[in-house]
This record gives sequence, structure tokens and C-alpha cells, in this order.
Amino acid sequence: MSSQPSHPALLIPGPIEFDDAVLQSMSHYSESHVGPGFVATFGETLSMLRKLFKTTSPSSQPFVISGSGTLGWDLVGANLVEPGDDVLVLSTGYFGDNFGECLKVYGAHVDVIRPQVGSRPQLPEVEQALRSKKYKLVTVTHVDTSTGVLSELKNLSETVKRVSPDTLLIVDGVCSVASEDIEFDAWKLDGVVTASQKAIGCPAGLSISMFSGKAIEVLEARKSPPASYFASMKNWKPIMQNYEAKKPSYFATPSPQLVHALHTALSQILAKPLSERFAKHKEVSDKIKQAATELGLKQVAGSPEDQAHGMTAMYLPESVKATDLLPKLANSGVIFAGGIHKEIATKYIRFGHMGVSVTDPARDHIDKAITALKNGLAECGYQKL
Amino acid sequence: MSSQPSHPALLIPGPIEFDDAVLQSMSHYSESHVGPGFVATFGETLSMLRKLFKTTSPSSQPFVISGSGTLGWDLVGANLVEPGDDVLVLSTGYFGDNFGECLKVYGAHVDVIRPQVGSRPQLPEVEQALRSKKYKLVTVTHVDTSTGVLSELKNLSETVKRVSPDTLLIVDGVCSVASEDIEFDAWKLDGVVTASQKAIGCPAGLSISMFSGKAIEVLEARKSPPASYFASMKNWKPIMQNYEAKKPSYFATPSPQLVHALHTALSQILAKPLSERFAKHKEVSDKIKQAATELGLKQVAGSPEDQAHGMTAMYLPESVKATDLLPKLANSGVIFAGGIHKEIATKYIRFGHMGVSVTDPARDHIDKAITALKNGLAECGYQKL
Repeated sequence: MSSQPSHPALLIPGPIEFDDAVLQSMSHYSESHVGPGFVATFGETLSMLRKLFKTTSPSSQPFVISGSGTLGWDLVGANLVEPGDDVLVLSTGYFGDNFGECLKVYGAHVDVIRPQVGSRPQLPEVEQALRSKKYKLVTVTHVDTSTGVLSELKNLSETVKRVSPDTLLIVDGVCSVASEDIEFDAWKLDGVVTASQKAIGCPAGLSISMFSGKAIEVLEARKSPPASYFASMKNWKPIMQNYEAKKPSYFATPSPQLVHALHTALSQILAKPLSERFAKHKEVSDKIKQAATELGLKQVAGSPEDQAHGMTAMYLPESVKATDLLPKLANSGVIFAGGIHKEIATKYIRFGHMGVSVTDPARDHIDKAITALKNGLAECGYQKL
Repeated sequence: MSSQPSHPALLIPGPIEFDDAVLQSMSHYSESHVGPGFVATFGETLSMLRKLFKTTSPSSQPFVISGSGTLGWDLVGANLVEPGDDVLVLSTGYFGDNFGECLKVYGAHVDVIRPQVGSRPQLPEVEQALRSKKYKLVTVTHVDTSTGVLSELKNLSETVKRVSPDTLLIVDGVCSVASEDIEFDAWKLDGVVTASQKAIGCPAGLSISMFSGKAIEVLEARKSPPASYFASMKNWKPIMQNYEAKKPSYFATPSPQLVHALHTALSQILAKPLSERFAKHKEVSDKIKQAATELGLKQVAGSPEDQAHGMTAMYLPESVKATDLLPKLANSGVIFAGGIHKEIATKYIRFGHMGVSVTDPARDHIDKAITALKNGLAECGYQKL
């Protein structure tokens, strides 16, 4: 059981509920950001990220920077894009679209493949686009938090590398890292940007990313300097390399407390085989999706193979309003999120199921949430036809 | 007394030692970033910042964004600078110089007034520069953490506003906010950028800033969009305004735990008159500087009126190496910082005296540090001539 004060179960698609030991690491006493104790903690944290991302290539480069998941988009835009570069955005929702908007700020010409809400771009269409012009990079949102649509990465990468081998494949993994399998090396990914507060299970405040040796080569070969100072990978790369080599180094002050919490969260994740973790997330996700179907609720992500395993976005029955249902769930001690995809915002709700809520059965979050959903819908006058 | 585990007193010029209640806020249970509880906490935090900065003008705009103090420079560069703008940087050390480097990334033409190490630009020279061309903005580092040089703001602002009324005056307050008096309205400042982990006394991970109505007008009148996505004040301004109005709003996920800790730190600071706080920092600073003088140590900041009240940068005797002295201090339970100003890096050390180490006499940090310094120098073979 958790030793935290009694509070409703936060089951939105991030921030998620946190483990007690992770939260205790947040209140670590103050340490120098360049002292040997913290340097070792930060260095180990960076090395653990390599294991989480399944990369053993020495040229892969992890980054942990104070910020949010959104800062990861700026890392890509300010360092891997130069004005006039063509970028292909594969959008499965709000976050895919906005990744594209961010890259435009850095001068990218952005083409977006945006299928109807709830589905994802298909490979023949991607291949056709790749043959039409030379893209500097392709971005894909592994799980779009606005729709719960899961994108397939392995075959996508095979297509990109076959048709346009110089094109970088960049993954927004904010809502997928640590709940969906990611094989950074095997799938030849060039960048995965994520954040701390979702399946990794560390409070918000960190931009976490991994870039391939090829992405670093593109960075080094820029004609112009990176278009940001704080988000310059050229400024941060030597710092990350020094920390990982356990040498003190300074560009901008990291957050020792957040890095301690990330260290604790990653240590917990890596204490068991990752395959078990992903299987558990799938098992719980299947159970939730089954329960939703039994309640007569349709998912936003249409096909089962397009459905994420760390969240479920569900259309509400026409007679039920989110603004009526969500407070009833909160009264039952369960917090879900409303919709944020502009085309369907008022018509659906989102249930996040990642991290301790999935892996710690003593919390009983999932059964409690399913029961609350069932009762809440009934209180709203809904009965399955 | 502190309930934290026993650890050496961190007396570097940031991060500083933290209060127990602040650290406990860091381990707050997970809350939705758009739920009513956290929205109220964040809104109150923004309103408290107005009091700390002494601004009652409704057009002043506070920002709290996940990042470090350095991100504040990018806020200025990406939002208030357009390519080709002239900027005058008043540099008193490493941080002044690098603020200028950051602004160059955003296309600024930067002129630097850089007097010899340990002194600050004088008003006649600033006035002459302001008459020579039309500067979009002037930047000044209130306390440069690399030298401990304190800049004077009130008369500087009077000069800038008299000679070049359209020029914005932007203050880097990373090492001064909450240890030096800042009168945002009375001194007609246009921007103060700072961070959480120094005198404010909240763990690192937050960029904190205040901009004037005039700075916001310059932002709104840009010919080009802000040159960053994550650091776009246009993206963040409505979010900050909504939070302060206690309305949920989303651009990028804030860190609820860090914001809770900042709320606790600001509540503690504002529970007493700010004048008492600044007087206490001055009293303790005077005591430390007196002790340094008695030990025969010369300060990097030459004139008493140029010396900061939250840190002391001291030249070492020629016979003493920082790499010998600092470990001896650590053995006595006191952590000081080495030098980082490239011209004098190996020749001096830095003692940070901000926040609870100054305001909580039960910690006994200051006397312990002075004694450790005295003994450490003696162990290094130094005797005052």
C-alpha cells in the first residue's frame, strides 16, 4: 500500500500516480549540481536510459534537461532542422499536429499526413510522400495523448530507411516510453523525445530524449548554429557526456531532486525484465478495453492494432456529457481526463493506465476505475442498449 | 533544527540549502495539472511573485516555466529580440557575457560593456553608449554568480529611461531575487529573469520571470513570431493569466511538485516583511566579509558598494590552492564553490549565503563556515601576514 496521504487516484494520461520511493527522492536534501554524489546519480540515470530505450550503440546520446515534454520538440526543431528543410509529420492527433507547428517555428516546411481521427497514416501513403521529395526528417507520435492512437514504428522505420535512407526518423514518445516497447537500435530510430511524468513515473519537469549517432552527425553538420541557446544540443552534449563519465560539468543548473526521482523510477523499472512490464501494461489495457466494450463504449482509436496500451480514449454515449460524468468519477475517487482533440473534444474521455496504477495491484486503481465508470454512467442515466 | 538526514551544509551560490517544509512539498502526491487543487496553487504562486518583485501594475506578467535560470535568457532572446536588433550588455562576469551569447543566437547585435573583473560598468559610460545608437534593450546582471559583483539598478534605470526611453531594461536576477531588494515598478524595470534554486529557496527546475506591460507590448508588436515554441511568451502568457484567474489551461505540462515547493517557499518569504529579509542578508553578508578581511582575503568585487549580499567571492592567498582548500572545507561539513570566471578561475572561491542558511540561526551554517574557512586555510599552511 502507498504511504501517501489519501487522495483520488489520478488516472489521466499523465501526470500519473507515483511510487512512494520516487516521491521521497523528490525531497532529497540539497546537493551541489557538480559535487561527486550528484554527478554519480546523474551519470547512472543517463546510462539507465540507454537500457530503457534498448540502445547499446556508443554513439547514441541521451539528454535529460529541465523542461517538459514539449521542450523535446524544440530540441528537434532547433538542432536537426534548418530553415527551408522539408519535414513530413505523421499526425494521429493534437500532439502530432503541434509537433509540426513547433518545427515551423524553426523554419521547416511541414507536410502533414493526417488521416481521419482515430486512425493512423498507412505505409503506402508514407512511401508515396517519401518518394515525392527529400525530407530531412519524418516525425511520428508513438501514442498521441489526445486520441490514444498507437503508431507502429518497426515497419515504418523499414519503409523510411528503404525509400529515403538519409531521412531521420524522430519519435514523440511522451505517452509511450515505458508503457510500449521501443527498440531504439533494432528499429533504427534517430530520436525519441519524451517526458518524466507519464509511464516513466517521475514527476513532471524533465525533458528526456535519446538521439542516434546519425542524428548527432546531422547536428554537427549544420550550416547554421542551433537556433536556441537553452535547447542547443551542442551546448548540452558535452555536459551529458561528462556526467555519464562521472565528471562534473556545467552549462545550466539541472534539478538534482528531479534527477534523483528519475534515478529511483528507472531503477525500479529496470529491476524487472522490460518484457514483463510491457506485457503487464497490455494485459491491463486489454481488460480496460474489454470493460469499455461491455459498457457499449466505442474507442477513439478504431482498430485494435492502433490502440495504445497505456491509455484508453473512449467516446461517451450521446446522452452523457463529460462535464456531468467526470465529477461523478471524481466523487468515486477516480480522476479521468476530458477530451482535447478539437474535432471531438466534448464527445470523449481519456483514462490513463500507466506505471504503478498498472504494476502495483495493491493500489486497486484499475478495478476501482472500471467500477466508478460503470456507476457514473448509470448515474448519468445511461444504460447499455 | 532541520529534520533532513545529516549532510554537509551546501554553501555554494546556488543551489542553496532548503527548508524542510519546502522539501516536503516536493513529494506532494500526484495531482492533475488542470485540476482545481493545483490550479489554485499555481495561481496563488504567480500572485505571490508579484509581491516578491514589488509590482502592483496589472500589466506586469509573471511566468513560471519548467527549465533553469538559463531559459530566462532564451525567453528574452526569443520574444523581445528580432534579428538585427541592437542590444547593450552590461557584463560583470561569466553570466553577463553568456546572456549576450544567448541573445546573439536570436540575431541580436550585441555590444558589451565589460570593465575589469570585480568592477561594474559606470553610468557615464552607459549613457555614452545609449547615445551612440538605438538599443532595443539593455541587459544587466544584478549579481553575477561568477564574481559576486552587485549591479546598481535604480540609477541605471533612471539613466536608461532618461536617455533612451524606448529601450527595455532587462535584469538577470538569478543570484539576486529574494536576497537583494528589487522594486520592479518603482525602478521601472521591464524584465527580471530568475530561477528557483537560489535565494527563493526552492529546488532547481523552474525558470521564474516578471515582465512589464511595456515588454509585453514589444512582444505583441513583433514583426516575426517568437523564435521558439517552448520558450514563446505568446504561448505561455494566456496560460499564466488563466492559472492566476484560477482557470485550467494547457500549453505544456508544468511540474506540480516544483510549483508546490515554490508556493511553500514564497509563502515563507512573504510571511515577514521583505525589508527584514534583505536586512538580515546584509547583516550576515557584512559579518562574512568582515571575517574574510580579518583573514586577509581580498574580495573579487572591489568596492563595498559593488559587493553582493547573498554570496562572497574571495581571492585565495597565493600559497593556497582551491583544489587543496575545498576538500578540507568539505571534511568540516561545509561545501563552497570554486571559481568559474575564466580570467581568475583557479585563484578564488565562492561562498553562498542565501535563504535558510542566513535566516535560520538554528542551522549554525554561517559560523560553522567561517570557522571551517579559518581552519582550512591554516591546514593549507596559510597564516595572515
